[in-house]
This record gives sequence, C-alpha cells and structure tokens, in this order.
Amino acid sequence: MSRLDSVIRRLRAQRACLNMAQGLVAGIPGPLLELGLGNGRTFDHLRSLFPDREIFVFDRQVAAHPDCVPDDKHMIIGDIRETLPAALSRIGAPAALAHADIGTGDPAVNAEIAVFLGRALPGLMAPGALILADRSLAMTGWKELGLPSGVRRGRYFVYRRT
Amino acid sequence: MSRLDSVIRRLRAQRACLNMAQGLVAGIPGPLLELGLGNGRTFDHLRSLFPDREIFVFDRQVAAHPDCVPDDKHMIIGDIRETLPAALSRIGAPAALAHADIGTGDPAVNAEIAVFLGRALPGLMAPGALILADRSLAMTGWKELGLPSGVRRGRYFVYRRT
Repeated sequence: MSRLDSVIRRLRAQRACLNMAQGLVAGIPGPLLELGLGNGRTFDHLRSLFPDREIFVFDRQVAAHPDCVPDDKHMIIGDIRETLPAALSRIGAPAALAHADIGTGDPAVNAEIAVFLGRALPGLMAPGALILADRSLAMTGWKELGLPSGVRRGRYFVYRRT
Repeated sequence: MSRLDSVIRRLRAQRACLNMAQGLVAGIPGPLLELGLGNGRTFDHLRSLFPDREIFVFDRQVAAHPDCVPDDKHMIIGDIRETLPAALSRIGAPAALAHADIGTGDPAVNAEIAVFLGRALPGLMAPGALILADRSLAMTGWKELGLPSGVRRGRYFVYRRT
C-alpha cells in the first residue's frame, strides 16, 4: 500500500465517520469542536454537514485555504494544551461533537496528545455528545461505537458519552 | 461538495489514472518523470507501481516525508521552467511516463504552467509515452485517452504520443 493509497483510505474513513455523526448528534444541542484546522478541508466538510451549528476550530496557526478559515470568534489559535482546558467559556455551551485529527509524524507526540485529549475533551462535551478521533482515546463514561460500512476497526474512532 | 469530498475525488482519479498507466507503458522503455514532489505520496505510489524504473522528480524544494524523497541523482530541485527544458541529459533517455499534478491556488499561474508543459514535456518523452496531468495540455502529436472507470471526463487527463 502506497502513501497515496493510505491517504485515500484515511480521508474516506474520516468522511464516513463525519457523515455518520451528522445523524447521531441531531438531537444533541451545542456547538462543534474541530481540533486542527490544517488545510481546512474537514472544517469545510463539517460546516456543509452542520450549516446551523457554531463550529469552533483550534490550531496552532492558520494555514488553510482562505475560504476555509472560520471567523475570529470561532478560530482559537494556540497550543491546544493551553487553549482547550480553558475553552468552555469561549464556546459558550458544552459541545455536541468534537473531531480530532491532529496526528503528527511523531508517534511519541501523538501518544501524548491522545492522553491529553482523553483528559481535557470530556469536560467540554454535552451529554450524549460524540468524539471522533484518528486515534484511540482513553476515557471513562464513553462508549466506542461501531464504524460506518467500509471503515475497518481501528482506522478511526467514534465515542459517545453514555 | 465540500473540499474533503473534492480532495478524495481528485486523489482517487489520480490513483486510477496512475494504475491504468502501469499497463499502458509496460512495453515502453525509459524512466518516469514526476513533476511536483509535494508530500511525496504520488512518488511513493509511482515507485510501488514501477519498482524497476528510474523515477526523476522535479520540484522547487523538498517538503515531503523523508521516506518519500528520491536520492540526489533523481531529485531535480528548481523551477521546472528552468530545469525541465535541460533535463534530457540528466534523465539519460526519453521518458516512458510523465505525471504532472502541480496545480497551485492561482488559476493564472496554472494556465501558464500548462502552456509551458505542453511545449517542454514532449521533447523529453519516448515514442508511445504517456503524459498524465491534472489539467488539459495542448500538444500536437498526442492523443487524449479515455479515463479509467469511475473517473469523469475533465477530472484528469491522459495523453499518449501517437
């Protein structure tokens, strides 16, 4: 499998999980959280799925296509290890959905971020909320859901607050 | 259609065309040319399809994953408008396949590059060679081939020297 194969597989898994989430959070009020703006593609997909929701995006810097950058109110710039724990007042209400695709090329950093997210994210989330992530998160009081058709177990992770 | 949908569609079209090219150039000797290393995904796919071919890669700079960077002999750094016209001696023989996915965010620059490639690339290519591109190229003596199943006309371009 080439890296081209791999990225196609990863992006399709990501899209399938986001699309599945659209229905699953329909009855859950609250904004959405996107951790990592990157080039803005996933943010663009989220806003197409959830045109009536506020979406708050966290990233170290803004490097996305200008069409895919949230306004200043919804773009929270900085290291998520600092911005996320303090975010509840900024986002205004517990979130219905968080999506975290922030893997770096460094496995040690990825593992550290996963530990951080497992601790910091739940405090921002509403009852019944979903967390989607490109890696496994250790959280109590959350159930790992089955993945959409065509997405192999372990390729993406969908958690629901029980 | 979101930008996430759009990139998945583009990468799948690219992969389908590259995979089709594998069979079509089986009988054509010569190295391969990859215009634009980017993050190295397409280069990685090309070398998986063509493990016995030399692949020369052209880009302004090297910004790929370290695993996806060709050796110094095969990495030609610089503006292709300067490096490409002089490349025949460097690549050693006319190429069997060239792949050009070098679109920028600027339509005027893209149009200019397409004109340049249509003029400069054919001089580097073997009889029967293929050129794959993410945009239309104006070349005489080349036939536009049908696209693989699932790839809509106009999404990618495959040309064969007649």
